[in-house]
Amino acid sequence: YPSPNCLKRGNKSMKKFLKTKSENLSEWYTDVILKAELADYAPVKGCMVIRPYGYALWESIQKFMDPLIKEHGVKNAYFPLFIPESYLNKEKEHVEGFSHQMAVVTYAGGEELKEKLIVRPTSETIMYEMYKQWTQSWRDLPILINQWNNVVRWEKRTYLFLRTSEFLWQEGHCAHADHKESMDTVLWALDIYKKTYMDLMATYGVAGVKSESEKFAGADKTYTFEILMPDGKALQGCTSHDLGQNFAKAFEWSVQDKDGNQLHPWQNSWGFSTRSIGGLIMVQSDDSGLILPPKVAPIQIIIVPIPGSENAKILAQELKKGLKEFRVEIDEREGETAGFKFNKWEVKGVPIRLEIGEKEANSKSVTVVRRDTGYKNIVNVENLTETLNTAFEEIQNGLLAKHKKFTEENTHEINTYQEFKEIMEWPKGFISAFWCEIPECEKKIKDETKASTRCLPLDFKEEKGKCIYCGKEAHHRWLFAQAY
Amino acid sequence: YPSPNCLKRGNKSMKKFLKTKSENLSEWYTDVILKAELADYAPVKGCMVIRPYGYALWESIQKFMDPLIKEHGVKNAYFPLFIPESYLNKEKEHVEGFSHQMAVVTYAGGEELKEKLIVRPTSETIMYEMYKQWTQSWRDLPILINQWNNVVRWEKRTYLFLRTSEFLWQEGHCAHADHKESMDTVLWALDIYKKTYMDLMATYGVAGVKSESEKFAGADKTYTFEILMPDGKALQGCTSHDLGQNFAKAFEWSVQDKDGNQLHPWQNSWGFSTRSIGGLIMVQSDDSGLILPPKVAPIQIIIVPIPGSENAKILAQELKKGLKEFRVEIDEREGETAGFKFNKWEVKGVPIRLEIGEKEANSKSVTVVRRDTGYKNIVNVENLTETLNTAFEEIQNGLLAKHKKFTEENTHEINTYQEFKEIMEWPKGFISAFWCEIPECEKKIKDETKASTRCLPLDFKEEKGKCIYCGKEAHHRWLFAQAY
Repeated sequence: YPSPNCLKRGNKSMKKFLKTKSENLSEWYTDVILKAELADYAPVKGCMVIRPYGYALWESIQKFMDPLIKEHGVKNAYFPLFIPESYLNKEKEHVEGFSHQMAVVTYAGGEELKEKLIVRPTSETIMYEMYKQWTQSWRDLPILINQWNNVVRWEKRTYLFLRTSEFLWQEGHCAHADHKESMDTVLWALDIYKKTYMDLMATYGVAGVKSESEKFAGADKTYTFEILMPDGKALQGCTSHDLGQNFAKAFEWSVQDKDGNQLHPWQNSWGFSTRSIGGLIMVQSDDSGLILPPKVAPIQIIIVPIPGSENAKILAQELKKGLKEFRVEIDEREGETAGFKFNKWEVKGVPIRLEIGEKEANSKSVTVVRRDTGYKNIVNVENLTETLNTAFEEIQNGLLAKHKKFTEENTHEINTYQEFKEIMEWPKGFISAFWCEIPECEKKIKDETKASTRCLPLDFKEEKGKCIYCGKEAHHRWLFAQAY
Repeated sequence: YPSPNCLKRGNKSMKKFLKTKSENLSEWYTDVILKAELADYAPVKGCMVIRPYGYALWESIQKFMDPLIKEHGVKNAYFPLFIPESYLNKEKEHVEGFSHQMAVVTYAGGEELKEKLIVRPTSETIMYEMYKQWTQSWRDLPILINQWNNVVRWEKRTYLFLRTSEFLWQEGHCAHADHKESMDTVLWALDIYKKTYMDLMATYGVAGVKSESEKFAGADKTYTFEILMPDGKALQGCTSHDLGQNFAKAFEWSVQDKDGNQLHPWQNSWGFSTRSIGGLIMVQSDDSGLILPPKVAPIQIIIVPIPGSENAKILAQELKKGLKEFRVEIDEREGETAGFKFNKWEVKGVPIRLEIGEKEANSKSVTVVRRDTGYKNIVNVENLTETLNTAFEEIQNGLLAKHKKFTEENTHEINTYQEFKEIMEWPKGFISAFWCEIPECEKKIKDETKASTRCLPLDFKEEKGKCIYCGKEAHHRWLFAQAY
C-alpha cells in the first residue's frame, strides 16, 4: 500500500489521480479517499480520521438502519469501553480470536491498575455479564439490545476504512428463551444488512453461512454478506452470529424457564461497521473518483453557478429553495474556476451536478449532468424536479444492476482444481466449487491459492459432487475467493 | 454514596424507595436510576452501563440538538480514540488539567508501545493537528466540526451519570479567521445548550462566564450553564470555550490571511454530555420516582389495560394505533398486578398513564393520569388526542416554571460574608455576591464554605460594591454555590 505521506497533499491539488482504478486499485482507492476528503491518516499507527464528508456516509447508513433495528423491538444502549481482562478470558475461543489485536490500558488516574483493562474489540463479555444480573426468569427474555460505538482491534498498517485499529460499528446482542427464536433474529439481522447494501448502497452481494474455520470466535454459526470488489477479491460486508448457549454457559448465566427449570439463554450478535464504506468506495466509482448512489449520498445535487454571473447565483439560490426534498448544496467558493469545481464534485461522487451559466440563467434553464454516465441535458426549471426524480431512480437502480452484473460475470462455477488455481491467478472473482467440508482441504486450498471459503450461500442447491481438492464426496458448492 | 451491591436488586422488587428525595438526595438519586432501569454499575471501577431507557433519553437529546448544530453549518466527523502522549503535552495548561484523570494504553497488538497512548479525555489536541494539515489559507476557514463520541476521565468512585470514568458527549471544535466570529460560535453553542435544557428538558439555569480559576484548561474564557439541584448544589450543565489562539500557537498552526500574512486561527470548543441526564433526574422527580418532561420522554404515554379484561386489551391496541403522533407503549406483561404496573411506570416517569378497565372499555373511555400532579380524569376516546395535547403542554411548561421558581427562590442576593457562610450551611442554593475577582479571595471562600464561583451571569448589571470577602472594590455580583 502507498505510504501516507506521498498522498497527504493530494486533496489540495485536485490533480489527476496517481493511478487509474483498473491499473492499481489500492493506490487509486487511497487516493480517492484523500482527494474526496472522506478520511485521512491519523497520527496514531493504524488509526484514521473520518472527515465530515465520509462521516456523512456513516450517518446515512445509521439513518437507514437504526429505524429497521428499532422496528424489530431492539433498543439502543451503551456499555463501557473497557473490559476487565478476566471477562475476556471466560470464553476460551473468544479470547484466542482477539488476543493479538488487543489494546491494553495498564495505568489510569496516575496509578498502575490491579487488573488490566482491554479496550473492547467487541462487547459480548461485558454485555452478557450485565444480562446475567438483569434476568431471573423466562419473563425477562428476550433481551434485545444494540449499541452504536467504537471498537479497537490493533492493526500495524492502515488501509483506510477497510483495516484500521479503531472502527465504528453497531453491535446487536440479543438473548432468547429458545434456539429457534434466536436464529430468527440472526437471519433478520442479516436481512437488514442485505437491505442496507442493496437498497441504500446499491451494492450487490451473496448471503451465506461461514465454514467452521472462518466463523466468529465463540459462535456456533456465522452468517455473512460477501461482496465482490473490482479486483476480484471479496469483502466480508457484515456478520451475524448464532452464539448458541456458549457464552451463557461460560458466564454461568441461567434463568428459570416456564416449568421452573434452569435455562441457559440462546444468544446472537451481529455487526455492521464503517468497513462497509470502504466497500462502497471500491464498488461505486470510476477513474474520475467516487460515484455515490443517490440514497446514501450526503449531497445529492451540487449546483455550480458559473463564476462571475450574478444571474446564475440568483437562480442557484432559487433552485435550492425549490428542491427542498433533495440534499442540495451550492458551490460559490471564490478563487476556483468552473472546471476545477466540476472536477472536485466529480471526485466526491455527487450524483447530479446542475451547471448554471449566464445563458441558462436568462432562459430559466439548467444543465443537468449525471455523475454515473456523464450524460448532459439542458432542462427547463419547471421540469427539473421530475427530471431529477427520474434520474435518481435510474442512477440508484443502474448502479445496483451494474454491480450485480459484475458479480455474476465474475462468479465461476468450476469442477477442477486446475481451473481453480488458474482463475485465482487471473481474473480472480468468486469461485463456486464443491468442497468436502473437511478443514484440511480448506486450509490447503488457501495456502496454495490464497482463496478461502467465503460462505455457503443461503440459497444453495442440494447436489452431489466431488471435493475440488481431495475428490471425496461433497454435498454443496461453496463460494471461494481471495479476501480483504 | 451507597454501595452498589445493596441497591443492585432494587429494580426487581419495586419496593418503596430506601429514602425520600428530601431525606437523602444522593441515595434516593441512585435508587431511582437503578429502579427506573436508566443505568447500572459496570464491573469496571468508575464506569456505568447506560440501559436502554436511559440511552433513549440521550437519543432524545441528540435528536433535538444535532439538527440545531447542523443548521449552523457544523458537520459531524470522527477523530481517533487514542492521542499520542506528546500531543497532549503540547499545550501546557491543557495537559496539567487532565494529567490525573488519564487512562493510558501501554500495550497493543501484543507489543509494548514506543509512545504511550492516552484514551481521549477531550479531543482538542488530535483534532487541531489535523486542522493544521488541512488548511493553507483563510479560504479554508472556518472549520466547523462536531463529534458525538465517548471520552475517559478517570474516577475512582462512580456517581451514576454525574461522575463516571467514561461518558458520552458531543464536542464541537471550530476554527475561525478572527476572534469575533469565533466568539459568535462560542455564544451560539451556549445558546443551543440553553435551549436543550429549557425547551427540551424543562430545566432552568443561569448562563454565564467562568472565573479564571474555574475555566477550562487551555481556554481564554469558559462559558457555562449552571443548574441548581434540589439539595442547593449547582451542576455545571455544559461548557463552551473561547480558546483564543492558544492551541494554534502551541501547534504552530497558521494560515495565510487575505493580505498574505500568517494568521493563527481563533478557536473554540463546546461540549454537552450524558451528565445532563443526571441533572434531569435530580430536577425532574419526586419521592415516587422520575417525572419526565414529555418532549424528552422516551415513552410519553403508557397504556395499562387492567389484567384479565379482553375488552380492555382490544381498546388499548385501538388507542395505540390512533395515537401515532405520540410515543406510546402498552404494558401487557403477564404476572404483574395493575397496581404493580402503575407503580413501575410512575418510577420511570412516563408523563401520562392511560388506565383501561372493563367499565372504561365498554363505554369507550379511559382514565388519564398525569405523572406530575397525579390528577386523574375520565376522558371519552373521541376527546383523547385533544386532552393529551393540552396535558403535555401543561406538563412541559409546568415543570420548567417549577424549576425556575425553585431556582429563583433559592438564589440569595447577599452583602455580608456572615450571611454567605450561614446560607452555605443551610439552605445552600445560589448566592449572588460581590467579588473583587482576585483568585485569593475566591480560594479562601471555597476553603471556608465549599462554595466556588459558578459564573458571572451573562445578564449581569454594572454595579459598584465591596468584595464579600476582602471588602475591596468590586464591579460585579458573581454567582456562588457548592458544586457537583
